[in-house]
Amino acid sequence: MPDILFAASSESWEEYEAPLRRAFDAVGLDARIAPEMAPEEVEYVIYAPNSALQDFTPYTRLKAVLNLWAGVEDVVGNTTLKAPLARMVDPDGLTQGMVEWVTGHVLRHHLGMDAHIVNPERRWDATPPPLATERPVTILGLGTLGQACGAALGALGFPVTGWSRSAKQVDGIRCLHGADGLAEALSGAQIVVLLLPDTPQTENLMDAERLALPAPGAVLINPGRGPLIDDDALIAALDAGQIGHATLDVFRTEPLPEDHAFWAHPKVTVTPHIASTTRPETAALVIAENIHRAETGAPLLHLVDRAAGY
Amino acid sequence: MPDILFAASSESWEEYEAPLRRAFDAVGLDARIAPEMAPEEVEYVIYAPNSALQDFTPYTRLKAVLNLWAGVEDVVGNTTLKAPLARMVDPDGLTQGMVEWVTGHVLRHHLGMDAHIVNPERRWDATPPPLATERPVTILGLGTLGQACGAALGALGFPVTGWSRSAKQVDGIRCLHGADGLAEALSGAQIVVLLLPDTPQTENLMDAERLALPAPGAVLINPGRGPLIDDDALIAALDAGQIGHATLDVFRTEPLPEDHAFWAHPKVTVTPHIASTTRPETAALVIAENIHRAETGAPLLHLVDRAAGY
Repeated sequence: MPDILFAASSESWEEYEAPLRRAFDAVGLDARIAPEMAPEEVEYVIYAPNSALQDFTPYTRLKAVLNLWAGVEDVVGNTTLKAPLARMVDPDGLTQGMVEWVTGHVLRHHLGMDAHIVNPERRWDATPPPLATERPVTILGLGTLGQACGAALGALGFPVTGWSRSAKQVDGIRCLHGADGLAEALSGAQIVVLLLPDTPQTENLMDAERLALPAPGAVLINPGRGPLIDDDALIAALDAGQIGHATLDVFRTEPLPEDHAFWAHPKVTVTPHIASTTRPETAALVIAENIHRAETGAPLLHLVDRAAGY
Repeated sequence: MPDILFAASSESWEEYEAPLRRAFDAVGLDARIAPEMAPEEVEYVIYAPNSALQDFTPYTRLKAVLNLWAGVEDVVGNTTLKAPLARMVDPDGLTQGMVEWVTGHVLRHHLGMDAHIVNPERRWDATPPPLATERPVTILGLGTLGQACGAALGALGFPVTGWSRSAKQVDGIRCLHGADGLAEALSGAQIVVLLLPDTPQTENLMDAERLALPAPGAVLINPGRGPLIDDDALIAALDAGQIGHATLDVFRTEPLPEDHAFWAHPKVTVTPHIASTTRPETAALVIAENIHRAETGAPLLHLVDRAAGY
C-alpha cells in the first residue's frame, strides 16, 4: 500500500481527491493519499511545481514524482529531486483541449472572423476567404500536442509544416528540424503556432529576427509557454505590420498584469491560459496508471529527460 | 460542338470565361460558349438564377441547365423550364469552404472566444471551456454540406446529431428524421447549425416554438438559407436569453439592409454570405464534366428533384 503525498494547492486537493480515489480503485491500486504526510513516509508525490514543497531532500523513500501539469520548467532544475519525474500527458483532457483551442483560433484568423464579430460600420464585404489549402500553417514543436494539432489542421486542409529540435517524421506534416530548418519552417508561414517547451534554448526563440521570417501580416498563436516570445520584439513587429495579429494564451507572468502592453494592443488577443488544462477525471487516471506501473515493476510512462529539460 | 449560353452577370462572365475554357479543354469538350446567343441555338445554359433569363420558352433545343450556385430555390419553380436542372456541387470549393466556416464558428462559440476578442475590462477568468465531447451539436440538413460538416465536427469530438426530412444513415452522426425527429434533434442541443434547402416546407422552420427546444442559451448558426428562420421570433428568443447568440451568414435580403435589427443586436454576428462560395476554377470543372456526360450519353450528376424543390 504505497504512501502518496498530494503536493499542490488546497483548491487542487478539493478538485482531485475524489477523482484520484476513483482512479486508484479503477486500476486496482490500494494506496494511502493525503495532502500532508511525514516526508520519510512518502513514496510518491503528485506534484504541482508551484506548491510549497521545493526541497525533496527529506523524502528519503521517494520512488517517483508525478507532475500534475504538462509543463515541467519549474521543477526540472530542482537538484534536490533525485527520483524519476513524469510529466502529465492527458490525451483526453490536455491534448483534446489544446487541439480545440488551436484549431478554433487558426480558423478564426483564417476566416477573418474578428472583422465580423466587431463591425460597428455594418460593412458587408462578400469577398470569400481563401480555402485552407491556400493557408500555410507552421507549428513549432512536434511533441504530443504539436502532432495532435498538426493532424487536426491537416485534416481540415491546411498545409502544415512542423519544426522540432531533433529530426522527426510525422504523417501529413512537412517536418523540419535544427537551426536551418527553423528559418525554413517560419519563412512564408501565414499562421505560426508555438507549442515548444520552455527551456534555456527556447527562451526568446521568437525574437525580432525570427518574427521577420513569416509572411507579412502573419498571425502568431502562442498556447505553449510565455517565455518563447520576446514581448518587446513582438510589439514592434505588430506595430510595423510584419505580424498582423497575436493570440496569446500564456505569459511570463500570469494572470497577465493589467498594465501589460498586450492588453491594450489592438492586434493582440489575450486568452487566460485556457488552451490546455488538466482535467481532474482524466488526469487522475493517468497518474493512477503510472503509480500502478511503478508498483508492479513496469517502466514509468512520460518520463522527463532532466538534461534536455522536458 | 455544343452551344452553351452563359446566363449570369457580366462580372461572373469575366470571372468564369477563362476557367470554363480551361475546364472544357481538360475534359476534352469542344464547345462554343458565349454570354449572348440566339435562344434557338442554345443547347446548354450555365445559369445564375438572378440572371435576366427567366423565360426558357424560346430555348427549343435546350438539353440541360447547369446551375452556378448550390441554391436552386429561385429557379426550381420556373414552369417555363422543361429541361433537366443540375445544381452546383463543388466539393473543393463549396463544400470545403462550408466545412471551414461551420467548424470555425462552432469552435468560436464552443470556446467562448468573443469574450476574449472583446475584453475592455481585461478580465482574466481561467475557467476552461468544456471539452467538445460535452457540447452536443445538431445539424439540420444532411445533404452534401451537412454531412461534410458533421464529419468534421465529429472528428473534433463533438457529439453530432443530424436531421433530415427523410431517413438517412451517416457514420458517426446520430440521424433523426421527420417531424418527431426534428423536435428530438433540437431538444437539448447547445449549438444548432442550419444547412437545409429553401423550400416551402422549410420556410420559417425555426419559429418561436422550435427556437424554444435547444438548451437555454444555445447558439444558432445559419449558413444555409435566410428564410429558414423567422427573424422576429429569433430576436425575441435572443432577448429572452433562450438563444444565447446567433451567427448568420444568409438573409432574406442581401446585403443585409443597414437598418435591419440583426446588425444592431449585441447577440447577433452577421457574416456577408461567405460561408460557401462557388470558386470559378473548381466550379468550372464540375460544369464541364456534367456537359461532357450529357454529350456522351451518361446521366447528369446532381440533378434537382423539381417536385421536392431541391
